[in-house]
Amino acid sequence: MLPIGSTIGIIGGGQLGRMLALSAAQLGMKTIIFCPDENSPAFDVTPNKIIAPYDDENALTKFANSCDIITFEFENLPAKSIKFLESISSVSPDSRALFISQDRIKEKEFLLRSDINIASFAPVNSIEDLEKAYLKIGPKAVLKTTRMGYDGKGQRIVSSLEMAKQAYEELKNSELVLEKFIPFEREISVVIARNKDGQVRDFEPAENIHENHILKTSTIPANIDNITAKRASRIAQQIVGSLNYVGVLGVEFFITSADPKSADQNPILLVNEIAPRVHNSGHWTQAGCITDQFEQHIRAICNWPLGDPTRYCDVVMENLIGDEIIDAHKNLKSGVQPHFYGKKQIREGRKMAHLNIVTK
Amino acid sequence: MLPIGSTIGIIGGGQLGRMLALSAAQLGMKTIIFCPDENSPAFDVTPNKIIAPYDDENALTKFANSCDIITFEFENLPAKSIKFLESISSVSPDSRALFISQDRIKEKEFLLRSDINIASFAPVNSIEDLEKAYLKIGPKAVLKTTRMGYDGKGQRIVSSLEMAKQAYEELKNSELVLEKFIPFEREISVVIARNKDGQVRDFEPAENIHENHILKTSTIPANIDNITAKRASRIAQQIVGSLNYVGVLGVEFFITSADPKSADQNPILLVNEIAPRVHNSGHWTQAGCITDQFEQHIRAICNWPLGDPTRYCDVVMENLIGDEIIDAHKNLKSGVQPHFYGKKQIREGRKMAHLNIVTK
Repeated sequence: MLPIGSTIGIIGGGQLGRMLALSAAQLGMKTIIFCPDENSPAFDVTPNKIIAPYDDENALTKFANSCDIITFEFENLPAKSIKFLESISSVSPDSRALFISQDRIKEKEFLLRSDINIASFAPVNSIEDLEKAYLKIGPKAVLKTTRMGYDGKGQRIVSSLEMAKQAYEELKNSELVLEKFIPFEREISVVIARNKDGQVRDFEPAENIHENHILKTSTIPANIDNITAKRASRIAQQIVGSLNYVGVLGVEFFITSADPKSADQNPILLVNEIAPRVHNSGHWTQAGCITDQFEQHIRAICNWPLGDPTRYCDVVMENLIGDEIIDAHKNLKSGVQPHFYGKKQIREGRKMAHLNIVTK
Repeated sequence: MLPIGSTIGIIGGGQLGRMLALSAAQLGMKTIIFCPDENSPAFDVTPNKIIAPYDDENALTKFANSCDIITFEFENLPAKSIKFLESISSVSPDSRALFISQDRIKEKEFLLRSDINIASFAPVNSIEDLEKAYLKIGPKAVLKTTRMGYDGKGQRIVSSLEMAKQAYEELKNSELVLEKFIPFEREISVVIARNKDGQVRDFEPAENIHENHILKTSTIPANIDNITAKRASRIAQQIVGSLNYVGVLGVEFFITSADPKSADQNPILLVNEIAPRVHNSGHWTQAGCITDQFEQHIRAICNWPLGDPTRYCDVVMENLIGDEIIDAHKNLKSGVQPHFYGKKQIREGRKMAHLNIVTK
């Protein structure tokens, strides 16, 4: 159990790193942020930072020596850097969870091994692979890079072999995977925490709506029945258990109707992806719960007792993207809890803030 | 209205300054902390600090030039420094509110002018004053220094003229005031905010229990009737209105039973003191409300719309004093939201942390 006054090293200086640092401070911890970008918003909330590329081993050594435990705001660090950090310090979540979630194929294989339902998929390493995969998975499918995709980057939806071939031409410099397109009724996510002692706590599922492939709103409670909520929770518990995971993890699900001919008429839950970190769809916990996901992550990696995930009110979390941030502070309605990230530059598609809107 | 990304200058580097800085960060603001103590806990949550005595005008000038607005975590700054800062920058709350609350006699005179009930009192500048005052106010009274008192420092409870004279000998190097001792049934406080546009929002009254003159718990809801709660709220509103106040302010009340012979049998409310800043008895708002007192203070001084003070659950706020902090992180019960201040040294009577315990 890390004592109060320890130093948490956070890799990544965006809004997630910033909010992790704020929660670490609430818990009496110091922080140091590692990020190559000198304008990182997380640098505004701690006196300790290292500005260096993620593969700079001298800087990583200095970082590891300045803190008691290392964690991440994002999983796409070079594998070599993660291994290096793990060889000289304590890293949570660990390399296994990071490597699995860095690579869509590894992630899907892990989920299949854990008996968790996912959409059909096939690795695509050549035009022949693509044709075979499309025949099996099409007519509507999504070609994705296996790595570094987020907010819809590195994805193409295709509905003919011709479109699939064109998408392949555009993306073929990366390793690819073809996934069956899921015409889901809704998307939900579960944010779950596990500490080193194996204590597990999950927040209620949120219902997510994306616009232009970027999360726009998460609504609590989700419009799902209790059985579906419990099954989603159980799957999330299974995932953190199988991974021996430490920290907060987000699990995204697609929900589709049961096949009318099936005996089981419960909605079908498919895991879309997992994120080994605090998750945008968990920001509502800042307004809805006594312990939010950021505090929960810090407690988990410090091996403190986890906090209470009970929800006290209904919340809609809304992301402010790009110039939606302009004048947002002037228009704060009652019952809105704003979180402004302090980013200097507005860019199209950039997450600038979120509002937790209490609806009941 | 200060834009997102502005810099808030905070005078004082204790836990209140630290929590103000964390809320400023939530709102996308930068912070700079001014404090003479190089071990200030607030220095851990911002890259910007000035370590200098409070009367160092060069340092104050540098500070004022580094921020867009100046605020305080405590009111006992030298008057000259406050006036100096006000002459070169924007200061909220302003010197009038600070000067009144720095001096018990000024504060009482202000409250009397505003037609607000307080305990009888008399200034004591000589042994003759003391004798006259005691005859009028005794037999049970409290001799207090007019300035710099907190957590019971500079106070003596007396119940005979002899005791009063002895207390006078101990305290006579300071300006003094003798107050009638109020055998109160309970103590409550109201935390209220007013922004520059005059919008006012107050939180529900908390019921406070002190141990060894230090706040030990604040409980919400207080065990008072609706009429008393409304009257306390109205008095707090009257105070921020009369002062043209900007920021969060705490008002402490004593409640005593009505004189059995009086026509009005409602409990009697006396204002004990006011604090022109976020207040320890308002810490429960971090767990009980969508907008807590720290966010509310930053919104108020930036002249943003104020947040919603609605309460969502019952809370007991408990201060951890001195070595009560030891192992507190190991014993966190479910439903507890801890706030550890990251103070390096444990000292007897020092506020080290608080727990917001959700009870319903």
